[in-house]
Amino acid sequence: AALVPPKTAPEIQNISMNNLTATANPLKNQEKLLILTPLARFYDEYWQNLLNINYPRNLIELGFITPKTHGGNLATVKLQEALRKVQNGSKKNRFAKVTILRQDFSMPVGTSEKERHAMKAQKERRASMARARNSLVFTTLNPTIAWVLWLDSDIVETPPSLFTDLAKHDKPVIVPNCFQRYKEAGVWKERPYDFNSWQDSETAQNLGKKMKEDDILLEGYAEMPTYRALMAYQRDEKGDKRTEMQLDGVGGTALLVKAEIHRDGAMFPTFPFYHLIETEGFAKMVKRLGYQPFGLPNYLVYHYNE
Amino acid sequence: AALVPPKTAPEIQNISMNNLTATANPLKNQEKLLILTPLARFYDEYWQNLLNINYPRNLIELGFITPKTHGGNLATVKLQEALRKVQNGSKKNRFAKVTILRQDFSMPVGTSEKERHAMKAQKERRASMARARNSLVFTTLNPTIAWVLWLDSDIVETPPSLFTDLAKHDKPVIVPNCFQRYKEAGVWKERPYDFNSWQDSETAQNLGKKMKEDDILLEGYAEMPTYRALMAYQRDEKGDKRTEMQLDGVGGTALLVKAEIHRDGAMFPTFPFYHLIETEGFAKMVKRLGYQPFGLPNYLVYHYNE
Ligand SMILES: Nc1nc2c(ncn2[C@@H]2O[C@H](COP(=O)(O)OP(=O)(O)O)[C@@H](O)[C@H]2O)c(=O)[nH]1
Ligand SMILES: Nc1nc2c(ncn2[C@@H]2O[C@H](COP(=O)(O)OP(=O)(O)O)[C@@H](O)[C@H]2O)c(=O)[nH]1
Ligand SMILES: [Mn+2]
Ligand SMILES: [Mn+2]
Repeated sequence: AALVPPKTAPEIQNISMNNLTATANPLKNQEKLLILTPLARFYDEYWQNLLNINYPRNLIELGFITPKTHGGNLATVKLQEALRKVQNGSKKNRFAKVTILRQDFSMPVGTSEKERHAMKAQKERRASMARARNSLVFTTLNPTIAWVLWLDSDIVETPPSLFTDLAKHDKPVIVPNCFQRYKEAGVWKERPYDFNSWQDSETAQNLGKKMKEDDILLEGYAEMPTYRALMAYQRDEKGDKRTEMQLDGVGGTALLVKAEIHRDGAMFPTFPFYHLIETEGFAKMVKRLGYQPFGLPNYLVYHYNE
Repeated sequence: AALVPPKTAPEIQNISMNNLTATANPLKNQEKLLILTPLARFYDEYWQNLLNINYPRNLIELGFITPKTHGGNLATVKLQEALRKVQNGSKKNRFAKVTILRQDFSMPVGTSEKERHAMKAQKERRASMARARNSLVFTTLNPTIAWVLWLDSDIVETPPSLFTDLAKHDKPVIVPNCFQRYKEAGVWKERPYDFNSWQDSETAQNLGKKMKEDDILLEGYAEMPTYRALMAYQRDEKGDKRTEMQLDGVGGTALLVKAEIHRDGAMFPTFPFYHLIETEGFAKMVKRLGYQPFGLPNYLVYHYNE
């Protein structure tokens, strides 16, 4: 005889993971999206772009983790004010759920772009960023979520179709190219910003083999040339925005992940994992879990210029 | 001027992780416990022991993941019936929350103890078990949880004080010794069951060094002697139950983890991680995250005897 499942008692959530699809057409399948942002600074442009995402709010949950520093407190207050406007507004414009985590550990180094990128500071800093990202995803990924969009708070230009554009590729992990606008002699130009999206090289592999277990490979530093194929340099301004490339390392400024991949165990290594940490180590972990990350060299998002 | 946090809008959850302690005295601090069970078979003894845990139900959440096999369906029905009795009963006896996940992938091999333990089947099987455990913890660990107790459904003897006894040690990860009762010539005896809790040996380390990246070390097989110090054999029947030992591998039949450790990124490797998978790989990951797992050789829980 067929098994008739008994009526559900109060406080019992039954979830059939078979029904939890993540497809090229999320809207059609009413797939739920979780947008996750580690947030140390609040940018109005980031917030406007988030509000402009063309996907129903009732299918979007938001998660933030903010540091308990003076800057982090300020950013949290701004975030809460922005959120109150939306969540107190008309019901159909509200996000399904919002979680703000106040981080209980502090970050090692300073806040200027120069300080953040000094090579010796990178390992500790990125380990802490990984820890913040793990705390965020481990505590907000409820059983109904199909997609996770990682979006840094200093990404100030993204199209409203960011989520659906990326989802259309139907990849386990996919990352756009992150650039930065700057002014030179009064003229606005643009340059690559994020060097964490790359295809591996033999040089880097061999460097890794000679390193101690706890040493890490870093990208974008002249003192350690890796000869990896950086997605940052593969951009063809006139090329098709839908062009894909396989990646072995990914950046996290904007990063779409099928929730299933996180559920399988994909986290951001806080320790050197194949000599990689944070989002680069994440890509390696995704590969060890049996999936292939992809990048879109001609699809741009823009990082704030301090 | 001091920052006054704005009033929280609907659907906004603000969590200060500083307030989320996991201490030697969980009750005093009203710390929340999440009990997680991958459940392929439902045992009444397991359920009775769970109901007998002497910790307030309003501080306990439960999470289960069950396979979509015939046996898994049956177990799910039994679980739901058992849960309905509790959750429809008086409010103060209800668990704070219950989640049942129906697994969307299948397990590789058969169900008899002999079949499960055949060496060549172990790798694939334990990788799948790791995947099930990851799905479970990634989707049920909400931001309010302080402790995670992993408890297999075929652990049929545990004291009501299991959680508070283990928590009292105030360790990031702690595991009791898992034995099994059996009858010999009409007399009840007991023997070690779980060989996944151990201290590493040089022999095992050297075996690992000679292996290919995707090969794994397994414990408890005569064809691969590791000379690790197994907690199973360290039991002193007359010894203090509170005796601790440091571990490099842990079993998952009963396993208490501070939620912070999972949040930092501790998952169950589904791929060979230092030639270890599932709960043994978990212990290695905990160590890479900077924590030391512990075991209690004289504190016993008992596994069902098929
Ligand atoms: N929770 C948390 N988020 C941070 C911290 N530092 C930076 N962030 C956020 O994490 C993201 C990446 O950090 P950022 O400093 O921009 O890194 P970079 O652009 O790679 O140099 C941004 O969204 C920041 O707002 C921190 O200490 N804690
Ligand atoms: N979700 C899920 N749980 C399983 C599956 N197989 C076993 N389990 C459960 O996982 C735990 C460990 O599995 P078990 O077969 O007892 O492993 P062993 O005792 O180490 O041989 C028990 O609680 C089982 O009920 C499965 O295919 N899916
Ligand atoms: Mn940035
Ligand atoms: Mn078992």
